[in-house]
Amino acid sequence: MTIPEAREEAVLEAVNQRRKLVNDAIPEALPIQRPERLYEASRYLLDAGGKRLRPTVLLTTAEALADVEPLSTDYREFPTLDERSDSPAADGEDTQPQTPETIDAMAAAVSVEVIQSFTLIHDDIMDDDDLRRGVPSVHREYDLETAILAGDTLYSKAFEIMLETGAASDRAVDALDVLATTCTKICEGQALDVDFEQREDVSPEEYLEMVEQKTAVLYAASACLPAILQGADQETIDALYGYGLDVGRAFQIHDDVLDLTVPSEELGKQRGSDLVEEKQTLITVHARDQGVEIEDLVDTEDVERVTESEIDDAVAELERVGSITYANNRARELVEQGKDRLEVLPDNEARELLCDIADYLIERGY
Amino acid sequence: MTIPEAREEAVLEAVNQRRKLVNDAIPEALPIQRPERLYEASRYLLDAGGKRLRPTVLLTTAEALADVEPLSTDYREFPTLDERSDSPAADGEDTQPQTPETIDAMAAAVSVEVIQSFTLIHDDIMDDDDLRRGVPSVHREYDLETAILAGDTLYSKAFEIMLETGAASDRAVDALDVLATTCTKICEGQALDVDFEQREDVSPEEYLEMVEQKTAVLYAASACLPAILQGADQETIDALYGYGLDVGRAFQIHDDVLDLTVPSEELGKQRGSDLVEEKQTLITVHARDQGVEIEDLVDTEDVERVTESEIDDAVAELERVGSITYANNRARELVEQGKDRLEVLPDNEARELLCDIADYLIERGY
Repeated sequence: MTIPEAREEAVLEAVNQRRKLVNDAIPEALPIQRPERLYEASRYLLDAGGKRLRPTVLLTTAEALADVEPLSTDYREFPTLDERSDSPAADGEDTQPQTPETIDAMAAAVSVEVIQSFTLIHDDIMDDDDLRRGVPSVHREYDLETAILAGDTLYSKAFEIMLETGAASDRAVDALDVLATTCTKICEGQALDVDFEQREDVSPEEYLEMVEQKTAVLYAASACLPAILQGADQETIDALYGYGLDVGRAFQIHDDVLDLTVPSEELGKQRGSDLVEEKQTLITVHARDQGVEIEDLVDTEDVERVTESEIDDAVAELERVGSITYANNRARELVEQGKDRLEVLPDNEARELLCDIADYLIERGY
Repeated sequence: MTIPEAREEAVLEAVNQRRKLVNDAIPEALPIQRPERLYEASRYLLDAGGKRLRPTVLLTTAEALADVEPLSTDYREFPTLDERSDSPAADGEDTQPQTPETIDAMAAAVSVEVIQSFTLIHDDIMDDDDLRRGVPSVHREYDLETAILAGDTLYSKAFEIMLETGAASDRAVDALDVLATTCTKICEGQALDVDFEQREDVSPEEYLEMVEQKTAVLYAASACLPAILQGADQETIDALYGYGLDVGRAFQIHDDVLDLTVPSEELGKQRGSDLVEEKQTLITVHARDQGVEIEDLVDTEDVERVTESEIDDAVAELERVGSITYANNRARELVEQGKDRLEVLPDNEARELLCDIADYLIERGY
C-alpha cells in the first residue's frame, strides 16, 4: 500500500516545484509596509517555511480540471473551463468578455496559505506553544498583542487576495463564501478541540468531526476553489470538496501519529507534546476505549521537562493496544476514499499527482 | 453650534428605532449553535448593548439614497437605485432579473456591527481591559482562548452575513472588498496605536491618521456600503466614504474627551483610564505640544487605584492649556466637513438625519 520510492520522489519534486512558486508569490501579496512591525510579524511564520501542501493541492486540482500538463501553464493566467468564443463582440465599445478566459489561480493558492498561517498564529497563542516550524511562535518572538493583530491582518488579507483572482463576479462570490464558511468551521473545530481537553469520553467519531472542522475543511476548500473559480459544475465541486475533507482528516491523523514517532529535532518541537499536554487524538481516544489510562501515560505536564524514555514507554503502550495501527488504518481508508472521488476529473497526469499527494500526506516522515 | 434639544431628541429616537431592529436581526444572523460556548462568547458583547451607531448610519444612508421616508421601507427588501424594467424577460425560461430590484440592507448593517464587536473583543485582550459596556470583557467572562476564537468567529461570520444581501454579484464583490480592506486598516490602526504608546513625539496629524484607520474606516464603510450595494455611481460612493471618515474621526476625538469628562458609572469604566494607561489621544498630543508632561499628570498606573481627585487635577491642567477645547474644535470641523459631503445625496429627510447623527456623534454625553 505504500508509495514506491520513485513515485514518492516524484511527489516530493512536484510539491517542491509548486512550493517555490508559492514562496515567490507570498511577498508579492503581502509586502512589508507600514506599520512594518505588524507586517513583519504577519510574514514571520510564512517566511519560516512550510511545505505549502494546501496551495499545492489547489494548483494541481486547477491543472487536472483544465486538463493541462502539470507546470506547463502560468498559474497567474490560468484557463477557465469556459468555451472560448472567437466571435467579435456585438457592441464595439464593450469588447471586454463577460466571463474572463483566465484566472489567477496563484492568488487563490496564496489566500489559502495565508488563512493557514493566521490559524497557526492564533492556535499557538491559545495552546501557549513556544515553537513552530523550529522557530519561536509569533507571540514569543514578538508579543501577545502583535500576534493577535498579525493573525487578524492575515485574516482580512486572505479575503483581499482571494478577490484578486480576476474570476467572474458570481464565481468570486462563491469562492469568498467558501473561504468565509471554511474560516467559521475552523474556529468551531478549534473550540471543540479546546472543549475535548476537558473531557474523557470523546468518541472516535466525535474526534473525526472535530478534525474535519479544524483541519480538513481547509484542504476541502483548497480542492474545490479552483473548480468554483474555473466554472466547473456542482458535482465536480462537491466531489473535490469531499476529496479534500477525506485527505485532510487523514493528514491530521497522520500528524498525530508523527507527534509520537518522529524525533523532536525533525518535528521542530518536542516529540509526544500532544500526550504531555493531554490533547485528544484519534490514538488516545482509541487507547482509552481499550482501557488505557491516558493521563497516567506521561506524568510530566511540562513539555520542557519530559524525558525521551517517558515518551518511549507511552508509545510502546499505545502500540501494544493497537492504537497506532488503528489510526494508521483509518488514515489509509480515508485516503483511498478521497482518491476514489477524483474519478470526476479528466484522466490525466495532474489527477495522478493528486492521488500521489493523498498517499504522501500519510506516508510523509514529518 | 449645538443641536437644539428637540432635534437631539429626534435623533435619539431615530437611533433608538433602528437599534431595536438591529438588535432583532443579530440573533437571527448569529444563532447560538454548536459549539454553544463559542457562540455564546461571540454574542456576549453584542447582547450586552451598544448604540448600533454604525448600522444606523448604514441604514439611514440607504434611505437617503433610495429617497424613501425614514423607516417607511422594510430594510430586508430595500430598493436599489436601478430603473425598474416592466418588460417581460426575452427568454421564457429565465425570468430572474440579472440585477435584483431589492437588497437586504439589514444584513449589511449587521455585518458591520459584527466586525465592530470582533475588534472590541480582541482590543480588550490587547489592552487587558476588564470592563466593556459595564460588563466584564469577553476574556474576563470566559477565558483568553475563547475570546480569541469568539473574535475570529465573528470575523468570518461578518463576511458570511455580508454575502447575504442578495445584491448583484459584481456589487457583492465590491462590498466584500470594502469589508476586507476596512478590516486590514483597522488592524493597521490598532498596530499604530500600540506603537504610539511607546512614543512621546506623536503629532496631531499622526494621531488623526491612526484614528482614521482604527475607527473612522468602519464609519466610512457603513456609509458607502449601501451606495455600493444599491448601485450608486462612484462619485456618490466616494463622497459617502468621506462623510464616514470625517464623522468617524470626530466620533473618536469626542470619545477621548468623554473618557476625561463623564463620570465612571455612566462610562461603564474608570473615567480617565486613557490617561492612567498612557494612551495617546488628540488631547494629550496637543497638551504635550504645550509643554505639559503627560506622564506626570497621573502618578498611578493602575486604573483600579486611581482617585477621582487625581483625574480632576489632570483634567483641569488639560483644560488650562486649551487641549480639550482644541479637541472639541477639531471634532466640530470634521463634522461640518462631513456634512458638506452629503450634498451628493437627494435633499430628503434621511439626509437631514445623517447630518443630525453627525452632530450627535460629538454632542452625546456618553
